[in-house]
Amino acid sequence: MSDLRRDPIVGRWVIVNSGHPLRPQDYEREEHIWRLGECPFCYGNEALTPPEIEAIRDPKTQPNTPGWQVRVVPNKFPALRIEGELQRQGVGIYDMSTGIGAHEVVIESPYHHKDISDLLNEEIERVIEMWCRRIIDLTKDKRFKYIMLFKNYGPSAGASLEHPHTQIIALPMIPKNVHEELIGAQEYFEYRERCIFCDILRQEAQDKERIIIEDKYFMAFCPFISRFPFEIWILPKKHNGHFCHLLREEIPSLANTLKEVISRVKNVLPSPAYNFIIHTSPINGETQESYHWHIEFMPKLTRVAGFEWGSGFYLVPTPPELAAQYLKGIEK
Amino acid sequence: MSDLRRDPIVGRWVIVNSGHPLRPQDYEREEHIWRLGECPFCYGNEALTPPEIEAIRDPKTQPNTPGWQVRVVPNKFPALRIEGELQRQGVGIYDMSTGIGAHEVVIESPYHHKDISDLLNEEIERVIEMWCRRIIDLTKDKRFKYIMLFKNYGPSAGASLEHPHTQIIALPMIPKNVHEELIGAQEYFEYRERCIFCDILRQEAQDKERIIIEDKYFMAFCPFISRFPFEIWILPKKHNGHFCHLLREEIPSLANTLKEVISRVKNVLPSPAYNFIIHTSPINGETQESYHWHIEFMPKLTRVAGFEWGSGFYLVPTPPELAAQYLKGIEK
Repeated sequence: MSDLRRDPIVGRWVIVNSGHPLRPQDYEREEHIWRLGECPFCYGNEALTPPEIEAIRDPKTQPNTPGWQVRVVPNKFPALRIEGELQRQGVGIYDMSTGIGAHEVVIESPYHHKDISDLLNEEIERVIEMWCRRIIDLTKDKRFKYIMLFKNYGPSAGASLEHPHTQIIALPMIPKNVHEELIGAQEYFEYRERCIFCDILRQEAQDKERIIIEDKYFMAFCPFISRFPFEIWILPKKHNGHFCHLLREEIPSLANTLKEVISRVKNVLPSPAYNFIIHTSPINGETQESYHWHIEFMPKLTRVAGFEWGSGFYLVPTPPELAAQYLKGIEK
Repeated sequence: MSDLRRDPIVGRWVIVNSGHPLRPQDYEREEHIWRLGECPFCYGNEALTPPEIEAIRDPKTQPNTPGWQVRVVPNKFPALRIEGELQRQGVGIYDMSTGIGAHEVVIESPYHHKDISDLLNEEIERVIEMWCRRIIDLTKDKRFKYIMLFKNYGPSAGASLEHPHTQIIALPMIPKNVHEELIGAQEYFEYRERCIFCDILRQEAQDKERIIIEDKYFMAFCPFISRFPFEIWILPKKHNGHFCHLLREEIPSLANTLKEVISRVKNVLPSPAYNFIIHTSPINGETQESYHWHIEFMPKLTRVAGFEWGSGFYLVPTPPELAAQYLKGIEK
């Protein structure tokens, strides 16, 4: 037996296997095989990265030397470059643009083997503060319309370096997936005069069964319309469109929520690779009051194949209700 | 240097690395590791699959015994089941539906180690005829709105069995990705009174540099707006919305084009896994004259990571112009 569920934001359907769901141990164990060589993100190897953009460091230390806690550098192999002018042109029936943008790497700590789940809460708070600082700084460049912050952890999730890091890409246009979410949230808001994400929070609070943890400021849950097994969303309870408008008092709670979520995923799943993405409002344009920033966290357990590519449907082998039971430690 | 290109159908942007493009040998070689055990798709093992739905076989042989050339069976672990009624319901702010559908497997030949590129042209023609027959048969079930035909080849492309096969899934709703393509084609058609796919054919014919092969009926090319390196589209030259309205005289040409495309990909790339998907019109509803069926073929060379999931942007490490040079044997 399976049931079909429809995402009320973008209209995507997912197929949830509720008859013979997979347990955490049924997923293939991922071998993390890394390239050998010196890690450019470790203490003493600062010269192996492009010069640092910004760092939180001991005030007695110099840029591009050890003594930092969080360090931001340009991506050595950027998807987009910051130099040049944004030029659009038609090429027959197609549209083209120069590849202008920024691509930065936030090295989350000096520790090669410590992921967010292994850091102290105050260390994670510093990472979050740095994410905000970089977004605010990049927003000053009026060529940029969207800033995407994401993490790839583990080779099968697309990470090429083992040392934990997040990436920030500033884009000269609003990406299609973000645009769809904005439109979906806007249409819902126009019809109901309510934010769809606030409604999702209310619905999850009422259903209870998919909530993993919550406190005064954040709720982490396996969404009813998960695309991936063990997918987790972290939503701020206070309606707020921009991640970088995070209130000071929300930061410790977000740090703790992130740490808890990643710890629990690592407890339950066999050495999971994962991605997470901060979904936030576009910049340097009109602000839309119907949007609500959040984090989407996705362990990499399944392979996206022909059916998903062709249809945009997703097959979810573990229902989110069951995934939440495992992540809460109720189901073992 | 990279350039941004925009898909005129669905509005997706791709980032093409034109400065330091990857060559075929720069992609990681994929190890194809298969589960051991008897192959349920080989001669003599017919009892290991659910009873056959249809087969092209020697008239002196019985169903579910050897002697077939192409054999269709229900998927043993179907994503959706054919029994039951389609029931939709609201669950708070969400929509749900029973998981009604069909999920069939077309075993392309009795040969465990022969992919489409290794078959004789007339053997491939039989596979294509069977695809059409199954689609026509499934269309009779009025609960279905869309039939998706796709192939996963190689474990990293999502195949769980080595013996080459295609899959057919009949769905009770039009999938989101298909819907977007239909809307995009419709809007283009309303504005210009021309089919966008016919315009893409004209543009590619004019630019020439991305065409791999063409004959009287089909053109295979690396599209200007490829999402994946070495992506190939196969388009019928004659405007036609439904794959199963394929003309009899087009079948040998399609068989030959598919064989050529897969052979060339396997010559150029190191043991590639791949997916292909037949994009065709919805069934059992209004037909839209602006749509044009085609095949999208995607070797599995890169990993989709946080940036792609979050943005819907795609990073293309080999420009399609260069990929076409390799596939034509001009660049080695």
